[in-house]
Amino acid sequence: MLGAFLFPDILLYVLDMIGVVACAIAGTLLAQHKGFDIAGCILVSMVNAIGGGTIRDMALDRHPLFWMTDLNYVIVITVTSLILQIFFHLYHKIDNALKLFDAIGLAAFSVIGFKVALHQDVSPIVAIMMGVWTAIIGGMLRDIICNEIPLVLQREIYISASIAGSVVYLLLERLGVNAGLNEFIMLGVIFAVRMLALRFDWHLPSIRLVD
Amino acid sequence: MLGAFLFPDILLYVLDMIGVVACAIAGTLLAQHKGFDIAGCILVSMVNAIGGGTIRDMALDRHPLFWMTDLNYVIVITVTSLILQIFFHLYHKIDNALKLFDAIGLAAFSVIGFKVALHQDVSPIVAIMMGVWTAIIGGMLRDIICNEIPLVLQREIYISASIAGSVVYLLLERLGVNAGLNEFIMLGVIFAVRMLALRFDWHLPSIRLVD
Amino acid sequence: MLGAFLFPDILLYVLDMIGVVACAIAGTLLAQHKGFDIAGCILVSMVNAIGGGTIRDMALDRHPLFWMTDLNYVIVITVTSLILQIFFHLYHKIDNALKLFDAIGLAAFSVIGFKVALHQDVSPIVAIMMGVWTAIIGGMLRDIICNEIPLVLQREIYISASIAGSVVYLLLERLGVNAGLNEFIMLGVIFAVRMLALRFDWHLPSIRLVD
Repeated sequence: MLGAFLFPDILLYVLDMIGVVACAIAGTLLAQHKGFDIAGCILVSMVNAIGGGTIRDMALDRHPLFWMTDLNYVIVITVTSLILQIFFHLYHKIDNALKLFDAIGLAAFSVIGFKVALHQDVSPIVAIMMGVWTAIIGGMLRDIICNEIPLVLQREIYISASIAGSVVYLLLERLGVNAGLNEFIMLGVIFAVRMLALRFDWHLPSIRLVD
Repeated sequence: MLGAFLFPDILLYVLDMIGVVACAIAGTLLAQHKGFDIAGCILVSMVNAIGGGTIRDMALDRHPLFWMTDLNYVIVITVTSLILQIFFHLYHKIDNALKLFDAIGLAAFSVIGFKVALHQDVSPIVAIMMGVWTAIIGGMLRDIICNEIPLVLQREIYISASIAGSVVYLLLERLGVNAGLNEFIMLGVIFAVRMLALRFDWHLPSIRLVD
Repeated sequence: MLGAFLFPDILLYVLDMIGVVACAIAGTLLAQHKGFDIAGCILVSMVNAIGGGTIRDMALDRHPLFWMTDLNYVIVITVTSLILQIFFHLYHKIDNALKLFDAIGLAAFSVIGFKVALHQDVSPIVAIMMGVWTAIIGGMLRDIICNEIPLVLQREIYISASIAGSVVYLLLERLGVNAGLNEFIMLGVIFAVRMLALRFDWHLPSIRLVD
């Protein structure tokens, strides 16, 4: 799988964990806002952080689920959520860091979901969808459980950033770019699109040619 | 499986696609109403159109999922949703057609889900449930994501039409009716019950013998 | 699996069914309150009673799902829901019994989910989570479908009672207590914690060391 350029799996894992931490934080904040207790906050954190990958693995029939064999996910989420609940009053200070972490998570989750799907030999369209699922279903489930309309479906650049990254990957693969470098580029594209969208307040419009 | 009467699989496929189009339209309309962006509308369309079959396949351990090997589903849904979003202002004119398509979808989805389950050698009760799941879970998930109380669970004849069709199938099978003809009858029963319910404003009551 | 003390599987099955009845009642009551029709109430009852076990089995890749091979679940739920809908006016009188049944269900569902997971050779943390999932996901899905914030995530002792039982089991297992007796103790711990929480109005706090 690796050619001239080696994209270290350990780096992707670290970025993945950063995304997990971001999701655990976002989940805990919303759950606290809704008045959930300690256990409820941890559960919503878990749904947010590993819900997308769980649904992806179940859809692709990959068993055991990724977090069942690597307990770091469950531990990192639980510890993050507990720390945040103890120091809740600090959360305004972490708001900007959260957006950064969240963008890292969006990129890392998309790359992992896309890559996992390609390894299962599905068609490229399905792989793109699995990247999107891994990246957004956790946040969707978090909002559904908390009785909110899912943020990721509203005028926010989430799904489209993930799709853009996958499409770039597929195009560059045609041009012969090796997988390791390509994953790195895909990560960068998604992260860049998301950060630019936040910076310049980009939104995907509703399309309506006529009125 | 086929006897004297041949119910063409291609016809069931066409009816299935009509149902998929109806679900994609219904999903897009609700998502637009909620202010979702283009990507969000497409995602809700997909949930509406293939969510029920996805949950059914996962419950019956059928992999790969039906839409992973036949990309027509994803393509038809995406194109339908995009066309609708572009010509959104026309939607009042399609309201009656939508109800017709929706009834076709209810019938086709029920027959497919029921048939798929019977092929997995489950008991008739489970097969009836899988027909219902395939027909209604997509719409339920759509409403849940959009933070609405599921329409199909309210005083609308959806679940009961699907069950009626399955029960008729099982009765006629006992009487020796061949599978092809029987599927056709099941389709007709569900479609007829749904259209009559709309026409004469039938509702399933709450039952309460005493007050 | 069994040593000096035999915990009869039939007793666990009976307690399981009591929990199923409690879930069917709770699901039907909420669904009626939301104005769902007969079929909608039955569906919400099913989601409440077998939703958690279904998600657990799908996550652990156990097929066929537990209720597909033992139709008693579907039958008991349907009959319970129908009886309740017919005699709805009596429901105030059953409120206390429902809390008792609900606590029995919490204990039985937790033990079954935990035990099933251990048989799949997952790590203890995952087994604890599967106990929790089996016990609470049904109620969460019920509330999500009915557009309510999940009760089990709020300041109620549900998740923590289930975890407490599993932790006691794991500790006693280290001390050499045989599985049969241990399951019985786990059941008792969860049931006792839940009932004491109701009796003395215990709540899990939000933790916030500083303000």
